Order: sequence, then C-alpha cells, then structure tokens
Amino acid sequence: MKIRALTAPSARSGLSFSEMDVNPDGEHDVVIRVTHCGICHSDIHMIDNDWGMSNYPLVPGHEVVGIVEETGRAITHLRSGDRVGFGWQRGACLQCADCLGGNENLCDASQGTITHGYGGFASHLVADGRFAFPLPEGIPSVSAGPLLCAGITVYGGLRSAGMRGGQRIGVIGIGGLGHLAVAFARALGNEVVAFTTSEDKAKFAVDLGAHEAVVHRDGEFDRPPGKPCDIILSTAPASIATSAFVNLLASDGTLCFVGVPDKPLSIDLFPLLVKRRRIMASPIGGRSMITSMLRDADRFGVAPVVETFPMCKADEALEKVRSNRIRYRAVLVA
Amino acid sequence: MKIRALTAPSARSGLSFSEMDVNPDGEHDVVIRVTHCGICHSDIHMIDNDWGMSNYPLVPGHEVVGIVEETGRAITHLRSGDRVGFGWQRGACLQCADCLGGNENLCDASQGTITHGYGGFASHLVADGRFAFPLPEGIPSVSAGPLLCAGITVYGGLRSAGMRGGQRIGVIGIGGLGHLAVAFARALGNEVVAFTTSEDKAKFAVDLGAHEAVVHRDGEFDRPPGKPCDIILSTAPASIATSAFVNLLASDGTLCFVGVPDKPLSIDLFPLLVKRRRIMASPIGGRSMITSMLRDADRFGVAPVVETFPMCKADEALEKVRSNRIRYRAVLVA
Repeated sequence: MKIRALTAPSARSGLSFSEMDVNPDGEHDVVIRVTHCGICHSDIHMIDNDWGMSNYPLVPGHEVVGIVEETGRAITHLRSGDRVGFGWQRGACLQCADCLGGNENLCDASQGTITHGYGGFASHLVADGRFAFPLPEGIPSVSAGPLLCAGITVYGGLRSAGMRGGQRIGVIGIGGLGHLAVAFARALGNEVVAFTTSEDKAKFAVDLGAHEAVVHRDGEFDRPPGKPCDIILSTAPASIATSAFVNLLASDGTLCFVGVPDKPLSIDLFPLLVKRRRIMASPIGGRSMITSMLRDADRFGVAPVVETFPMCKADEALEKVRSNRIRYRAVLVA
Repeated sequence: MKIRALTAPSARSGLSFSEMDVNPDGEHDVVIRVTHCGICHSDIHMIDNDWGMSNYPLVPGHEVVGIVEETGRAITHLRSGDRVGFGWQRGACLQCADCLGGNENLCDASQGTITHGYGGFASHLVADGRFAFPLPEGIPSVSAGPLLCAGITVYGGLRSAGMRGGQRIGVIGIGGLGHLAVAFARALGNEVVAFTTSEDKAKFAVDLGAHEAVVHRDGEFDRPPGKPCDIILSTAPASIATSAFVNLLASDGTLCFVGVPDKPLSIDLFPLLVKRRRIMASPIGGRSMITSMLRDADRFGVAPVVETFPMCKADEALEKVRSNRIRYRAVLVA
C-alpha cells in the first residue's frame, strides 16, 4: 500500500513528505492510521545518524497513536476502529527466555520501530500488531504517544528498581522523561524528590506533585535533601555526579539509569558497600509492563505536559526538541 | 579481668603476648574463652594500619570461636558453657531502621570487633553477647571462625543479590571467600561457575562442587563460558575487568562485590541497560543472616578448607596469609 511519510533523505537533513510503499504481511501486521506522534530525542539521534546505524530514507516517530484500519489474520486482540499506541519496539523473537518472561524489551532480537522500519511521522504505520496497545478510554490521544516511550522508560525503570509505593523516590532531571517519572512516582503512592539544575523546573516539579525539589549544580547542593531515597531514577541524558547521588540512597537503595550518560561511570565501591546499594540501568519495558503503565496512567490520570504541532511543522518541532526548548514533550498532530 | 592477648604494639610490627585488662559491663557483655580464631586479610590491614584507623596496642582476630564463661544480666540466649562464634561486628545501635530491619551490618553506628576493641587472638574475648552466635552442633569449631566473617560475607552477598536456588551463579576469585561462595552456592541448589586466574584453583573449585571452572586473564577467556549467570559474586580483593563480567550476566542479573577493588570502577552503562543488569556491593550480614548462614552450613555441611596453627605461631600464619600462600583459610588454635 502507499503511505505518505515525512522522510529524512540523509543524515542531519530536514524532513519532507514523500510517498512510500509498505506491504502488510497478512499475518501479524496491522495498519494504523496515525493521528498523533510524539517526538523523542532518539528520533533526532536517528535522523542525525548519531549512533551510526541509520538507514535512509528514514521515517522518524516511535510514540505513535492512531486508529486501526486493517489487521492481519493472526491478530486477535485488535480490530478495525480500535485506538492504539505503538512505541519504541516493533518486534522481538517472542520465544527466548526474556520474551517468555514478559521482557521482550531485553530480547537479543529486539527490533526498534525506527531502527528496523518506517516510523510514525506518516499517514499510516504498518507494523506488527503484537506490539500495538489498545488505549484505555481515559487516556487522551495527545497524551498517549509520550507515554509509549518516555512514559514506559521511566515506569519500567521505577518498577524494575523495586518501586512499590510507600517509598521515597528521587528523580534526576525534569524533562520529557523526568516529569513523567515525578507524576508516576507520586500517583503510585510515594514521597517524591526532584533533582534539577533549574529553579524553574524545581517549581514545575512541585506543581507536578513532587514533595520536594532540590536544585543542584553537578551533584552539589546548597541544602542537601534531609532524607535518603529508596530509589533514585536518573533521566539525565548526560553524565551525572554519580557518587553524590549514590550517597543519597538509603540502605538497599537503587540508583537506576534510564538516560544513558555520554561517558563511562566512575564508581567508588565503598559507598555502595556500606549500605548495600545498587546501580542499574533499564530500557523501556516489555508488553506486560506497558500494559500496566497504561492502566496506571488511566487510573491515576498521569499524562505528559505537551506542546502540539501540526505534522507539516515537524521540522520546527524537531528543532525545538533538539535545542531543549520543549516543555515537556512535543507531539505532532495529523 | 586479666586476659592474655597477642598484641601488635605498632603498625607493621610482629605480635607478642601481653596481659590486658578488660571489664565486662555486667549487662550485655559475655566472656568467651577463645578456642579458635580465624585469620582474615582485614586483620593484616588493621595490624599494618592500611586504613589509617588502627589504635595500638591492637589485638587482631574477628573469626572467634570459644566457650561462654560468663554472661551479663541482660543476656538471655546464651549461658555458661555454650559454644559460640563471634565475627566482624561487635556492636550496633539496635534502634535505627537498618537494625530494626535485621540489617545491623548497615547501621551507621556499627562497631567492628577489632576496630572498636580487642579481638580474638587472645585467651578471652569480652564483648556484647548480642553479637555472639550459638554454634550448631554439626559445625566443627575449627570451621566456625571463617564462617563468621568470610562465610557470612559471601552468603550475605549471594542472598542480597537474590540467590534463591535454581540459578546459575558465578564466583570470581577462589580464595578464602571464593571457595566458601562456591560451596554455599552449590549446596543451596545452584549451577556454579568459578572464575579464577589459576589452573590449580580451577581444579580445586570443581572439587568443591563447581559445575564449571573458567581460567581467565583479567577478564579474557580462552573459552568464554557458554551460559550467562544470574548472579556473579566478585570476591577478588583487587580490581576486576568489570565490563567483561557484566557481559556474562543474564537479563536482570547482578554483579555483587564483596571484595572491594583498590580503585574506582569504570562502568559502561550500555551493557547494563540492554539487559537491565545491576551492580551492587554487600558487607558481611546482619544477625538474622548470620543465623541463616550457620543453619545452612550445618544443614549442608558447608565448611572452609583450613590450615591450623597454634596461637603462639600467629606471626607465621599471618605471614602466610599476607603472601597469599594459605589454602584457603588460616585458623589459630588455642
């Protein structure tokens, strides 16, 4: 079938509309008419070939929301007319220990929506329906896209780090990911402390529900927070002052990275040892985790703060994301 | 009361017998007539003032086994004649969240047996009976000392990293700690792989129960092990090739340090991220964990391989420990 898509013809180029050919496989593929698509920094990394793995022409977009128009024979959980979301992952082997355990996101054969195909900056997304999620009615379409990537990234990180309510949760970085982490951690019954380098974002974090917001400069605090955290989630895309934050963890506490720093961590073992602390990193979430995340977002009204742009102004939106001027997530509307 | 103790008068000196004065507090202290005392590298670090915290005259020894001769009024779980063990820790506040949670080993006010008093290279140890453990009958006195420090260090690390049986457990370093880790992991129903730099120790690890023993040079393998580990316990006192071992972890696997490397770790986040792996460190164990460890050592016959020396030959034994020539733990016999 023919679709219309916003394509990058080469690295670091602007996007323009082209007509593309895509062929549903008849078995598992679904055709989703795109109504909304969020923009993530990974889209820009792929457009710019920052990871050296981009193929052109490239169609970005992996926070996709739309309406199912066709379903392959083997798809039983979706039907034409359903409103669905589609996130970072488009495929996995579905047979390995990770997949069988509900951790398709850890599968060695994991395929990314925009690393292994055309993404959602398009009229339609044609992709494996087993990675499309019916959206609960209470989640607006404009909110759902960012939940499918930024949302599951922080929710999966917090859950995998052991968040279960009644804990004190720190969030480093109040951006597209961090603001959703604050909202989820608060909604799920935790005391939340936001760590940011900006006074404005500290205020915003409190508006979002943080009990405390602490301004720091590279891990140095004017007034260090008084109480240790059970979990600290780092959503910062750059390196953080790891040791400073390790020292803010309670016994058996976990520092979980969902933003990957730009250089290797240097970690002093002694502060880990004395309080039996942990460091981990977590990538998005499996299908079961995504389903739980959507349920909780619906149940507790967790939604990203977004700026919307018409699809034809994608370049303008991308430029604002690139220069960190979006508050807090950009969404293209078809 | 007067005791006879082997004392180091100053840093890096030999030990000699002296008479010392110690006064049981009447409430919680017990008087233990020492029959055996293991030797740990920490004893040497304290004798040599490697950590800059030693006070002289210093009496080493924190793998103490003996017979209770007196008990303070407030001690109810021990009586005169009981055979007990006493390990690294001699005190904690017993009121903080860590202590109340059974993690006295994480207490901010934790006191070490030889960092905050006289140790067990002596005729008697006078110390808080709440940190003395009745020894199950099946554990020989010559084995119990090393269990109380080396044993709980590896058992606590494995348990805190999530060991529950039916897993694949790697052990880095086959020495005083590592050989007990292999024995515990095997006894508790796991598939065990030993990582060592020595062909001899590889053979020994298999004799101890390891299903596989892999010789490596700084994390480089002739034949890398085929299957990933759920937990890898690093007992090496020096730095290890952290990234090489992180890559041997399964999804959600944990690399747990119980030997503290001599310099900060440098950790690449990406291998942690793709498989949601964790890094942690663990110090000894709380009283509940020690009790479980002794129960399991008794139940499954886990015992250290020891070389014994009469107490008067402590210097000779210390020299052998210092130069890594002990196979695998030295024990002084009174």
